[in-house]
Amino acid sequence: MTHPETTAVLRANQVLYDAFEAGDIDLMSALWLDGPDAATVSCVHPGWSPVVGRDAVLRSWSVIMANTAYIQFVLTDVTARVTDDVAVVTCGENMLTGFPVDPEGGGDGAPGLAGGHAVATNVLRRTAAGWRMWLHHASPVLTREDVEVEGDG
Amino acid sequence: MTHPETTAVLRANQVLYDAFEAGDIDLMSALWLDGPDAATVSCVHPGWSPVVGRDAVLRSWSVIMANTAYIQFVLTDVTARVTDDVAVVTCGENMLTGFPVDPEGGGDGAPGLAGGHAVATNVLRRTAAGWRMWLHHASPVLTREDVEVEGDG
Repeated sequence: MTHPETTAVLRANQVLYDAFEAGDIDLMSALWLDGPDAATVSCVHPGWSPVVGRDAVLRSWSVIMANTAYIQFVLTDVTARVTDDVAVVTCGENMLTGFPVDPEGGGDGAPGLAGGHAVATNVLRRTAAGWRMWLHHASPVLTREDVEVEGDG
Repeated sequence: MTHPETTAVLRANQVLYDAFEAGDIDLMSALWLDGPDAATVSCVHPGWSPVVGRDAVLRSWSVIMANTAYIQFVLTDVTARVTDDVAVVTCGENMLTGFPVDPEGGGDGAPGLAGGHAVATNVLRRTAAGWRMWLHHASPVLTREDVEVEGDG
C-alpha cells in the first residue's frame, strides 16, 4: 500500500537534484530542515566524511555548486519508504558533469563531459511546511575497473 | 532533549557491528526488519550498489562474513536522531581487518592486518519487538592519497 504522502516525498527528493543542477542555493536552503533540529542535519558527499549541521551542509553545497560548471542527473530505482513523520528515499544518481575549457590550453580546447554513478540515501522529515531534507548520504559505486586498479596497489 | 528511546536505538545499532565481528548470521538476522516491510529493507556495502529486500541483504552479509577472516570495529561520532517510529544513526566505522596467510606463499608468511575507514547511515524502525535495522548505507571515505591517485588517471 502506497502511503498518501509518497508523491510529496518524491517531489521533495527531486528538489535536491533540481537545486544542484540549477546551482540554486536558495532552493537548496529552502529544502533542508530548519528549526530546532537544524543542528542534526547531516550530509555525506561521495567520498567525504559527514558534514553536520544545517549551516555547514549549506556551505558545502555552495562550494560544490560554485565548482561545478555543469551537472545533470538521471535518477534510477527511486524508492520511497514513508512513515507518518519520516521518509527514506533511496536512488541511483547517474551524473553527467561538464568542466570548462582548460585555461592553460591543454587538451583539445573543447569543454569536457564526464559520467559518474553514485547511490544515495535521503532521509526527509515531515514539517508543518512540508517534507524537508534531514540527511543525504551519497557514495560512489566502484566499477570492476576501480576494484582492479585498487587491487594493483 | 534526548529521546527516551535513544539508548535502545544505540544498542540496536551496535548489534550490527557485534554480529559482523562475531560472524553471527543468526544475530544479524534477528536485527534486520522482518514482517510486511521486509521487502523494503536495503543495504549499501562500501562501494556497492544497494542490495534490496531482507533475504538478499542477509545473503550479502553471509557472503561478506564468510570472506572476512577477522574484523574489528571502533565506531566514532555515533549520533542518534530518534522520532517515535524511526531512528537515524550516523557513525564513523574504523575497521581493523585481518586476512589469512597467503596460500601461494607470497608476502612474508605472517597473517596481515589492514585498517579502513567508512561512514555509515543506519535507519531503524520501531517494532513491537524492539528497534530493527531497516537500512544500512556505508561508504568509503577517500583520503588525500586516493584522490591524488584518481587525479593521475
